[in-house]
Amino acid sequence: MTIDAKMNRQDDKDKNARSSYFGLPALDVSVAFPQATSASSFPPSVSDFYQFNDLLTPEEQALRKKVRQCVEKEVAPIMTKYWEKAEFPFELVPKLANLGVAGGTIKGYGCPGLTITGSAIAVAEVARVDASCSTFILVHSSLAMLTIALCGSEEQKQKYLPSLAKFDTVACWGLTEPENGSDASGLRTTATKVEGGWVIEGRKRWIGNSTFADILVIFARNTITNEINGFIIKKNAPGLTVTKIENKIGLRMVQNGDIVMNKVFVPDEDRLVGVNSFKDTNKVLAVSRVMVAWQPIGIAMGVYDMCHRYLKEREQFGAPLAAFQLNQQKLVLMLGNVQAMFLIGWRLCKLYEKGTMTPGQASLGKSWITLRARETVALGRELLGGNGILSDFLVAKAFCDLEPIYTYEGTYDINTLVTGREITGVASFKPAALAKRSRL
Amino acid sequence: MTIDAKMNRQDDKDKNARSSYFGLPALDVSVAFPQATSASSFPPSVSDFYQFNDLLTPEEQALRKKVRQCVEKEVAPIMTKYWEKAEFPFELVPKLANLGVAGGTIKGYGCPGLTITGSAIAVAEVARVDASCSTFILVHSSLAMLTIALCGSEEQKQKYLPSLAKFDTVACWGLTEPENGSDASGLRTTATKVEGGWVIEGRKRWIGNSTFADILVIFARNTITNEINGFIIKKNAPGLTVTKIENKIGLRMVQNGDIVMNKVFVPDEDRLVGVNSFKDTNKVLAVSRVMVAWQPIGIAMGVYDMCHRYLKEREQFGAPLAAFQLNQQKLVLMLGNVQAMFLIGWRLCKLYEKGTMTPGQASLGKSWITLRARETVALGRELLGGNGILSDFLVAKAFCDLEPIYTYEGTYDINTLVTGREITGVASFKPAALAKRSRL
Amino acid sequence: MTIDAKMNRQDDKDKNARSSYFGLPALDVSVAFPQATSASSFPPSVSDFYQFNDLLTPEEQALRKKVRQCVEKEVAPIMTKYWEKAEFPFELVPKLANLGVAGGTIKGYGCPGLTITGSAIAVAEVARVDASCSTFILVHSSLAMLTIALCGSEEQKQKYLPSLAKFDTVACWGLTEPENGSDASGLRTTATKVEGGWVIEGRKRWIGNSTFADILVIFARNTITNEINGFIIKKNAPGLTVTKIENKIGLRMVQNGDIVMNKVFVPDEDRLVGVNSFKDTNKVLAVSRVMVAWQPIGIAMGVYDMCHRYLKEREQFGAPLAAFQLNQQKLVLMLGNVQAMFLIGWRLCKLYEKGTMTPGQASLGKSWITLRARETVALGRELLGGNGILSDFLVAKAFCDLEPIYTYEGTYDINTLVTGREITGVASFKPAALAKRSRL
Amino acid sequence: MTIDAKMNRQDDKDKNARSSYFGLPALDVSVAFPQATSASSFPPSVSDFYQFNDLLTPEEQALRKKVRQCVEKEVAPIMTKYWEKAEFPFELVPKLANLGVAGGTIKGYGCPGLTITGSAIAVAEVARVDASCSTFILVHSSLAMLTIALCGSEEQKQKYLPSLAKFDTVACWGLTEPENGSDASGLRTTATKVEGGWVIEGRKRWIGNSTFADILVIFARNTITNEINGFIIKKNAPGLTVTKIENKIGLRMVQNGDIVMNKVFVPDEDRLVGVNSFKDTNKVLAVSRVMVAWQPIGIAMGVYDMCHRYLKEREQFGAPLAAFQLNQQKLVLMLGNVQAMFLIGWRLCKLYEKGTMTPGQASLGKSWITLRARETVALGRELLGGNGILSDFLVAKAFCDLEPIYTYEGTYDINTLVTGREITGVASFKPAALAKRSRL
Repeated sequence: MTIDAKMNRQDDKDKNARSSYFGLPALDVSVAFPQATSASSFPPSVSDFYQFNDLLTPEEQALRKKVRQCVEKEVAPIMTKYWEKAEFPFELVPKLANLGVAGGTIKGYGCPGLTITGSAIAVAEVARVDASCSTFILVHSSLAMLTIALCGSEEQKQKYLPSLAKFDTVACWGLTEPENGSDASGLRTTATKVEGGWVIEGRKRWIGNSTFADILVIFARNTITNEINGFIIKKNAPGLTVTKIENKIGLRMVQNGDIVMNKVFVPDEDRLVGVNSFKDTNKVLAVSRVMVAWQPIGIAMGVYDMCHRYLKEREQFGAPLAAFQLNQQKLVLMLGNVQAMFLIGWRLCKLYEKGTMTPGQASLGKSWITLRARETVALGRELLGGNGILSDFLVAKAFCDLEPIYTYEGTYDINTLVTGREITGVASFKPAALAKRSRL
Repeated sequence: MTIDAKMNRQDDKDKNARSSYFGLPALDVSVAFPQATSASSFPPSVSDFYQFNDLLTPEEQALRKKVRQCVEKEVAPIMTKYWEKAEFPFELVPKLANLGVAGGTIKGYGCPGLTITGSAIAVAEVARVDASCSTFILVHSSLAMLTIALCGSEEQKQKYLPSLAKFDTVACWGLTEPENGSDASGLRTTATKVEGGWVIEGRKRWIGNSTFADILVIFARNTITNEINGFIIKKNAPGLTVTKIENKIGLRMVQNGDIVMNKVFVPDEDRLVGVNSFKDTNKVLAVSRVMVAWQPIGIAMGVYDMCHRYLKEREQFGAPLAAFQLNQQKLVLMLGNVQAMFLIGWRLCKLYEKGTMTPGQASLGKSWITLRARETVALGRELLGGNGILSDFLVAKAFCDLEPIYTYEGTYDINTLVTGREITGVASFKPAALAKRSRL
Repeated sequence: MTIDAKMNRQDDKDKNARSSYFGLPALDVSVAFPQATSASSFPPSVSDFYQFNDLLTPEEQALRKKVRQCVEKEVAPIMTKYWEKAEFPFELVPKLANLGVAGGTIKGYGCPGLTITGSAIAVAEVARVDASCSTFILVHSSLAMLTIALCGSEEQKQKYLPSLAKFDTVACWGLTEPENGSDASGLRTTATKVEGGWVIEGRKRWIGNSTFADILVIFARNTITNEINGFIIKKNAPGLTVTKIENKIGLRMVQNGDIVMNKVFVPDEDRLVGVNSFKDTNKVLAVSRVMVAWQPIGIAMGVYDMCHRYLKEREQFGAPLAAFQLNQQKLVLMLGNVQAMFLIGWRLCKLYEKGTMTPGQASLGKSWITLRARETVALGRELLGGNGILSDFLVAKAFCDLEPIYTYEGTYDINTLVTGREITGVASFKPAALAKRSRL
Repeated sequence: MTIDAKMNRQDDKDKNARSSYFGLPALDVSVAFPQATSASSFPPSVSDFYQFNDLLTPEEQALRKKVRQCVEKEVAPIMTKYWEKAEFPFELVPKLANLGVAGGTIKGYGCPGLTITGSAIAVAEVARVDASCSTFILVHSSLAMLTIALCGSEEQKQKYLPSLAKFDTVACWGLTEPENGSDASGLRTTATKVEGGWVIEGRKRWIGNSTFADILVIFARNTITNEINGFIIKKNAPGLTVTKIENKIGLRMVQNGDIVMNKVFVPDEDRLVGVNSFKDTNKVLAVSRVMVAWQPIGIAMGVYDMCHRYLKEREQFGAPLAAFQLNQQKLVLMLGNVQAMFLIGWRLCKLYEKGTMTPGQASLGKSWITLRARETVALGRELLGGNGILSDFLVAKAFCDLEPIYTYEGTYDINTLVTGREITGVASFKPAALAKRSRL
């Protein structure tokens, strides 16, 4: 039999391979596995073992409750579907808009002027159910809107913030480039002054929300000063293309884009006047790192809640899984981690509110919390057995969603070295010169 | 504004949200990120640091080489696409058939009669590139075919094995049920003797390959003896439906099915005469647990190879990532784990070949190897930074694929308790009676 | 040569083995290793990265400072010597007495009436320098004195507490027995009513301070009611012997005793009237578990402080150890753990002060904190290299001291199961009946 | 009351503190805790779960058995006493001499000419019972004797090796200095050529056996060539003093010394002619690193054996500890680690015997094995509860003994970087220049 003949036979086989029931719709998981409830009916929140609600103001508590109810009701039933398809749930935008959290701590311009603690707890509550949604909000609010609020002119603030606060327009924030990830300050996109504006040339990668954003906050290197400047680019600007990054294992609803800017013109009025060096981005990153740190807290809460219910529902060997020593110990370690993560996040907010938060403190919070969250979701993944690999039961999804968070906004390693520099006074980011072989 | 009006506005916004470049095809990753090579061009195998090839016979070495070349060439370029879509790559079946590994250690009936070591190393080489493919082969060969070889009649072996060995027909193996996972021996599907055959009634869940398998090996409880029996059911048998389990985060190409058997008739000739109690499945599981244990070995090898190349290609802060202490230490721990995993797997094969392998030894191998593999792929995930969440760069996919393997064929916990029983003489699977509260 | 001849030769060799410099006094570590400062000159406290001092009242802050100064000055210079010899530093008792912490939260009777937070932070500051000293205080104050305060009669309180508060007398607390460790409630020591008092018969093991305590609080089973009762036994009571447990690797200054009670008579007036069942000990254990949880916090603080100084002083390869990525990352993880441990301990105190603390909350705190402390001191041990095995540099001692704390007052496992029972409603302390072999 | 008065009162109290039973001898642990057998009666060897004995030659098996019997009989009953006192057990030297292992792989000169596998397994069997004894042997045999065998003249070999092989004389090996630990090649001790010999000036630290060694192999920097040379110094040479390093937490029987060489004269005949640069020490270190790697294997075996027996003997809650899920899982992980460690060690020996072992392979073996051993002994420490802190039950001692081994002969970090350099081609030992602050 020749290779061709074989391939033909394969074609036949492909057809035959499809049995008569091939193509039947999958059973709903509640039918296929009625032994435990899936996350579309979200489990009650039971992770507040050390009564942290007491540490919140009544307003923060009310916001927390409102956000939780909304996402449990609106997001939980549809998230598995969108996540599996790696599509953004546009239908949720008005629901998220109603939460009134976009703009976070910004005062005025239609923004809610929340405390950072309130803003953080809202993010955590969204992430508890779905981290893609919380990342969508963070990129829009804590990166893009905040940059405009902190570094924009009064006109820019009045022009852009109100509609962004209502999610009538959506924003993204472009710093990372293909060649510059951890070493973000070395970015290569250029901004060249021309009459009436600037010409932007370069590429960005990983930019969340960018495939559909109305407004793109973009950082580029001023060809004269060699310093970093910031610009607002509009969707569909000539020379701008954005394409989706596919094949992600986590935060699959978030649309990360590859941005190519081929001589994109930006009028003078859309230059962010407050961005004059890389350091100016740090004001934004200080807040956003705190907010990002609250996502794993929320994720871990949701995973704990789900596991807690599952262990009580699912039985093996004649007893609920909750009755086994090995399962109890995992669940308890998860709970301990959640308590500690919450407290670290809370204290970070208080330091910020006090006005003394340092970059090293923020980096410690982000790195330590993601480390413990990673441990926590891995335990949860294990507790759910086979159902731990189905996104229907939340934990599999959370397990995957945590990975990009562990890495973005400073990888675990980079954040530990930021803190390390602060506590030792010595920077260790760069390796030794690529030196001659030592004798060791 | 009413809710309806709001939704209408949302409809408008949805349309607007799609920019003019929305819908452009994603950039190929080699264009979007030329800084490092993706896994479609698979990295060289560099994990054999302790020269294990020496431990293989020339035939085993040759098989290893042949399998490696095939999967690097045929599977690597297309796996990301199928994995993302969660579809089975039927086009690969003739390629996998050509490897001549189906049937593994079975002698005669068109089967290759490999050593278990050779069979295992072949599985590892497939898993090194793609674990879905290796699971597809294992279910077909080490579970279904082996059950027929060990428990089938001479007629059944002659009838089924030759075409299965050629992958002209594909088989699956159904033990697990919605209510019985770790406690598999408690299965509830019934087999009732009727004239000329048996009527099978019940459900199976998680059964790999089942949505398109030609032959389904199914275990059911004999309603007279109350013991477990085995049966061969054909695709499209009346009363049989199989639907795909969706939303998996790992082994996404593997088609796991929910099987519903509603009075499915099986003629007497298709009862597997050698399956007369649950213990008879153990002969099969002893082999398959060894084979399953080699998947994480292969996965970890592939992840190591990929990270090794990536760290040398990707630069940050003016140096290849390979030059950083933190990265080197992770890579070295991964390498150490791979060496140890390989040796454990190899020794397990030798014990099997010697004829003395116990269930506890197999369970120790499976559990210990998956534990270290989990650690290894998590380190690799971290090493690749952002690209560590894209299946294009292998590691993200491997990170996810390992999770079902960690859990199937005995979860980590169950396997440790199997070994624990053997070394202590005390079984601890079941929890204490759901007793009155203690005073602790 | 006969064996005898050989042994004789050995005798000669033993003599010869001792060189002329054999017997010279060891160099002081500051002479032998001037490259880094030993813990006899204690490093500054630099672990309060998240400014927790703000969470303390001025009184608590003042107490913290006072305790810190005292132990740095009085304990640090002599602790290595006593720890090595496994002897109790009686000379420190008046110094510790001056701290005014004995009695802790007890009000009146010469006790300081501290907040539990204040009492806890004092314990942590002692443990930061030396955990043996903090255990000495805890046994005396949080176990023995507190039992008298909570379960004693007014006469007993007036009689015993004032001198205990001044450390004029020292107390111990005897619950654990050779046959009953984790299962403490099953204790076997008996108390038989006789005219005018009780006869105590049985054994206790591990009882801290017992070899020299003036007062022994002892729990025994009432032979009539079969419930647990409590008694005060005096040093040198006829029939009482206490011998030291030798060969400990941790908390070597703490004198743990084996107590043998051979018909020891206790007059009626020395029965603790408030101890009528095992549950009555739980009131004491609730507080003491909180206090015990603060020891690892203090230990981890001290280890962090020591490593921080050491990394800046010690150089290798031409740079301080603080300049290496691998070292910085370890130090940062230690710091993150310390922040989280402190917050968990602090929150536990607040729950206690609020009056709502549950046993599960206390057990979670104790188990989680000791787990992280264990991780922290192991990192510190590694950071100090060879000097990490010398108790002169604190970390080796702390590494060892943590082990008994990880285990006493409820092992890690037992405490997780206590919390596990509370959050699941199912107790899992006991194993399944020693059942017939399962089929797994 | 004045301070003086207080101190006087304290003097009184000190006296009073000593009760009438103070000073009674401690109960033997078999009396104080008859519930489980201590290590003085050593547990049977049950860790060879994967039948590794099959991988040894009959001669290697016989040697293993002989060594095991000797150390179980001679060392186990007395080791707790010596370890606690931190004294060297001179009485054991003739027993260890009878084993015929000193000199290891050296052929001729009265040395046994063992295979490296045989030599390694002998070391492991000694370390299984007591690691101090195995370190004593290794320093003497695999460092000092091997240096003479590899780098000495024929006369030196004939003069020194025969009596060292019989332990009639004992040797030590001095490389490490106070200023140079990990960076050993930077050593500062000088050797200045004078008439008829050399004058050695400098200090060494941590040198095992040095306080009583008859022969000290010392490395020093040739003041002319600036290269490293080697010398044999005799005990009691004028200008030589050695004092004991005290306060170690591990390997407490090993006598590590601070060596001060104040113009010590060495005749020409005692210069080791084969040591002409630091690289010449690597031939020795290649072997010794393999041998050192086998110590943690032996330690872990002993700990496993001890825990296995303990869990079956000790009961709580009405069942042997072996019946609890949490305990079984720990024990099984320990067993899995032991299997993997053994195989890594064995493979390393085979690579050495094959003549292809690289420094990176040796470093990987040493670092990986010590990492897993550390995990293993920590699990064992936990399994034994309170008795896990008493050296009587072996595990506490082993837990401490592992720490120096984790660090000496290349710390974990250094060894991973040695391997890292080999697999990446980039050395990363040194930190970046102590650079200006980066912008991160």
